[in-house]
Amino acid sequence: MKEYNDYLELVNTALSNLRLPKQPEGLYAPITYTLDCGGKRIRPVLALAACEALGADPMSAIHQAVAVEMFHNFTLLHDDVMDNADVRRGRPTVHKKWNEETAIISGDAMLTTATMLLAIKAGSHLAQALELFNGTAMNIYEGQQLDMDFENRCDVTVEEYMEMIRLKTSVLLGCACGMGALMADATFETQLKFFEYGVNLGLAFQLQDDYLDTYGDPATFGKAIGGDILNDKKTWLFIMALNEDKSGVVKFLIGQTDSPSEKIEAVKAVYNELGLPERIHELISAYIDSAVKCLDSLALQPEARAFFMDLALKSATREK
Amino acid sequence: MKEYNDYLELVNTALSNLRLPKQPEGLYAPITYTLDCGGKRIRPVLALAACEALGADPMSAIHQAVAVEMFHNFTLLHDDVMDNADVRRGRPTVHKKWNEETAIISGDAMLTTATMLLAIKAGSHLAQALELFNGTAMNIYEGQQLDMDFENRCDVTVEEYMEMIRLKTSVLLGCACGMGALMADATFETQLKFFEYGVNLGLAFQLQDDYLDTYGDPATFGKAIGGDILNDKKTWLFIMALNEDKSGVVKFLIGQTDSPSEKIEAVKAVYNELGLPERIHELISAYIDSAVKCLDSLALQPEARAFFMDLALKSATREK
Repeated sequence: MKEYNDYLELVNTALSNLRLPKQPEGLYAPITYTLDCGGKRIRPVLALAACEALGADPMSAIHQAVAVEMFHNFTLLHDDVMDNADVRRGRPTVHKKWNEETAIISGDAMLTTATMLLAIKAGSHLAQALELFNGTAMNIYEGQQLDMDFENRCDVTVEEYMEMIRLKTSVLLGCACGMGALMADATFETQLKFFEYGVNLGLAFQLQDDYLDTYGDPATFGKAIGGDILNDKKTWLFIMALNEDKSGVVKFLIGQTDSPSEKIEAVKAVYNELGLPERIHELISAYIDSAVKCLDSLALQPEARAFFMDLALKSATREK
Repeated sequence: MKEYNDYLELVNTALSNLRLPKQPEGLYAPITYTLDCGGKRIRPVLALAACEALGADPMSAIHQAVAVEMFHNFTLLHDDVMDNADVRRGRPTVHKKWNEETAIISGDAMLTTATMLLAIKAGSHLAQALELFNGTAMNIYEGQQLDMDFENRCDVTVEEYMEMIRLKTSVLLGCACGMGALMADATFETQLKFFEYGVNLGLAFQLQDDYLDTYGDPATFGKAIGGDILNDKKTWLFIMALNEDKSGVVKFLIGQTDSPSEKIEAVKAVYNELGLPERIHELISAYIDSAVKCLDSLALQPEARAFFMDLALKSATREK
């Protein structure tokens, strides 16, 4: 097994070797711009590491790993149009830097390119790789649609929320792990266990994201704190507070935009009153435990187990 | 060989048997709505007919035919958002009936669904089918981008225009024919000839579309005549007129919106002066001749040859 950064380098090298066409510039320049955004590249790293953990050369999964990363960046690009977001990782979003038409068509081209990458050297695994990839993609669209539907609802349950984040963000981490296992010629059962590990990791990751949006250190987290509260975003914290807050403060503040910092403080006070920061970490721990159970059932070599264990623990305690 | 309408019925039956999920409704209802728009379904019909013309059961290509139709409808959906079009085939476009976010995400789901359909019972042809399909998709995005780039240019050459329509609309007809041939286990050479037939058919088809937008009978054509002229759309007619019109009237009228019917009449007068209606039909005939040459080189059975011959001749003389 390698270190995280070694896998990251393999991914970044493969990305810089993509050599997309140059023309028409309006189609391809935004793709390069989007991929240049950096980021942790956790999905392709998971794919390569899963592949190596099962005894294969991680490079057997490199094209599929890059396909997953390409797909992820496509979803960010189209999500930014749908959310009308101005900034992503400190840079203007594609539809701000260029325009909306460009963001739509370049995103479409990224989705097709992802499918093309998936097929490179997939050999006898092509049909299964495609099935895993496309099934995951449909889940992600469903999750994104549910997330948009939740904006107009005040009766979202915690169960609905967990299903939404499972679809929207977690299955892609599962897909990355399962893809690495598939490319390592693993059995379907092993692929499935690695998939489940990734889904649990993703759920823990997303819940920690919800936590950090309210409780993170702005300097470390890299974006303004309290954005979810200001936008009445139906996160785990917000839904729990809506359900349990007898004072009615949270419900009352929905749609209020006059005093942003007071709104954040008032909602946060309810979260604290209800012990939600501790309770969300109990939940995160439970998902990490599930991820570890999947790892244990895989009976990996100690070094490989440690790699995935470390990732799971870090995602539960990360501060950015 | 069957009649056009028999293939059409096979396609429509397959489309109505798709059984997409019902939830989330915001994601799937727009897909059903888009597919319900009717239309000639020329692409999937070409795929089934090509398959049967080469001696195979047309149903061997049914999933791939429907994949091509799904892809085509996805491009219409996203094009309508990019063009901000209100109406498609007499009904509100998806982004008008729902909203833009819905149109984007439902379109993405259609593209992934198309790839899923492509893989069904593709067997040993999967890798090739995917390569043909994805390569075609990239061409189409490039064509769409060029079309958007042309909006802001007055120096578009006829060669650039022909390349744009080849990419944006013709290769998909080529892909449909090639896909049918592939699913009939044809040699690569045969697939390629059928592909070329489709591309030439598509070029003739698009040029006739340009012609009808100015010279069609509004009652038959189904939309207002002169829309391309009003929007200064860089069609073959418009580009030729820009190049050859010594009076400078066409160039002068670019951007003018005050007197729509006068503008249409003035530009049309230049077209007539330059003999463009006759010249575009000479060009259309040349593409039909090329399509027929491809057919001849395929040495099909007389009945099969007649089917594709008939389609080619009809697309050159169609009035809607």
